[in-house]
Amino acid sequence: MPVKPFVYQSRVRFGDTDASGRIFYVSLLNHFDAAEAEFLRHLGVGYREIQNRKVGFPRVRVECDYTGALVYDDLMDIEVTVDRVGGASFTLGFVVTVEGRHCARGKVTIVCIDRETQRPIPLPENLRSALS
Amino acid sequence: MPVKPFVYQSRVRFGDTDASGRIFYVSLLNHFDAAEAEFLRHLGVGYREIQNRKVGFPRVRVECDYTGALVYDDLMDIEVTVDRVGGASFTLGFVVTVEGRHCARGKVTIVCIDRETQRPIPLPENLRSALS
Amino acid sequence: MPVKPFVYQSRVRFGDTDASGRIFYVSLLNHFDAAEAEFLRHLGVGYREIQNRKVGFPRVRVECDYTGALVYDDLMDIEVTVDRVGGASFTLGFVVTVEGRHCARGKVTIVCIDRETQRPIPLPENLRSALS
Amino acid sequence: MPVKPFVYQSRVRFGDTDASGRIFYVSLLNHFDAAEAEFLRHLGVGYREIQNRKVGFPRVRVECDYTGALVYDDLMDIEVTVDRVGGASFTLGFVVTVEGRHCARGKVTIVCIDRETQRPIPLPENLRSALS
Repeated sequence: MPVKPFVYQSRVRFGDTDASGRIFYVSLLNHFDAAEAEFLRHLGVGYREIQNRKVGFPRVRVECDYTGALVYDDLMDIEVTVDRVGGASFTLGFVVTVEGRHCARGKVTIVCIDRETQRPIPLPENLRSALS
Repeated sequence: MPVKPFVYQSRVRFGDTDASGRIFYVSLLNHFDAAEAEFLRHLGVGYREIQNRKVGFPRVRVECDYTGALVYDDLMDIEVTVDRVGGASFTLGFVVTVEGRHCARGKVTIVCIDRETQRPIPLPENLRSALS
Repeated sequence: MPVKPFVYQSRVRFGDTDASGRIFYVSLLNHFDAAEAEFLRHLGVGYREIQNRKVGFPRVRVECDYTGALVYDDLMDIEVTVDRVGGASFTLGFVVTVEGRHCARGKVTIVCIDRETQRPIPLPENLRSALS
Repeated sequence: MPVKPFVYQSRVRFGDTDASGRIFYVSLLNHFDAAEAEFLRHLGVGYREIQNRKVGFPRVRVECDYTGALVYDDLMDIEVTVDRVGGASFTLGFVVTVEGRHCARGKVTIVCIDRETQRPIPLPENLRSALS
């Protein structure tokens, strides 16, 4: 039975646009940051809970394809999915549409590290189960 | 004898602009952040040296008047001056010109705090002397 | 009879914070940008409707006092009010609280210009009435 | 005979960092934006010259791998190279090092469009030759 996908809605703000009249490509990724946070909160493993002085979650890879124009005030539907769960890292996928029109797709890979050694460590068990 | 003013040069980047074709007003303040850092480095009291686990320097007030258009690729001269030195805080002034044309003026007030108590503490002596 | 104030809710995102652990002071102003847009939409004069190739609305002044710490994931209540309505400009006021705790207050002044001449022109009548 | 690579130097600003103490991953891409602009200026085809009301250069893809920590005030060497030149688009490569230590590598693909039709058009000849 298909599960309803998680969708975070976010607006293109004036400060997100650039002189071309479209969204500045980097600015879209700030919306991914918000979508990622809300997706994990939705799964019950929000960063405020799982991130602490001992464990950190740096992003180690991002990619994004911009397939359609996004302009000021567009209300974006950002669908977030789990793309991959590894031993010490996971990858989220993002698909951005505006009223059904495809505008962008991207991925962000997040690794779990020990903040003292700055080395990768296994994902916390509650995060792993939530993502699986 | 007049002292040569400190001027930090910075360019309006494409991501700084908005759909109006001008700089997005908030983005200019990121250039103030860079100018502030370089000004303090120039005085020999760069934040990397004076900021540590015990002492922090949150900004507690900002103001800026935008007097002329700034557009993509403009090379800004940002003059930084010490506007006021208090017991636990100081205020820097910023004047932005492009080829002599006045474009903005602003002020930022920075307070020195004990990071544990989050309460204001006297400015470090070397910072106070550098600013005076 | 008191009118219910307009409040826009917005979260402090991870990208809004800085190495001090608090919100980076400039980032808060991006939330003001969003609150301004939603306030005008709420009044029925959203920028997408009133802004066009002929008329622009550059911000000519911003000020903000930061009175309390804002940290990652804080859910901010940003109350927006009309502070002043002039001939060619208006000023909005912003008060930021988190669970009732006062964190910041600011003002933004917006001027209406003819995009061709880049000179101030009277506020559009529908905007003026909505703000009054 | 090897050609000296183009390197743009840029500092990690306080506003670029996040509460982890490192650079916020999205912020690095703003430095790529600056490096891209300076690289094209260096080639004699700066955007201010080649971009106009008829021709635009949206970015259609970005990717970045973060391989080492970047912290406040790090002076980054961003080496920019031409990765690929296509009919209507080109890809730039970026390698970020700090004092020789590898910190990130990325790519940005830029397409040339007719701003009226919003459709891809061949790269301007002077841009193509400069990139080849």
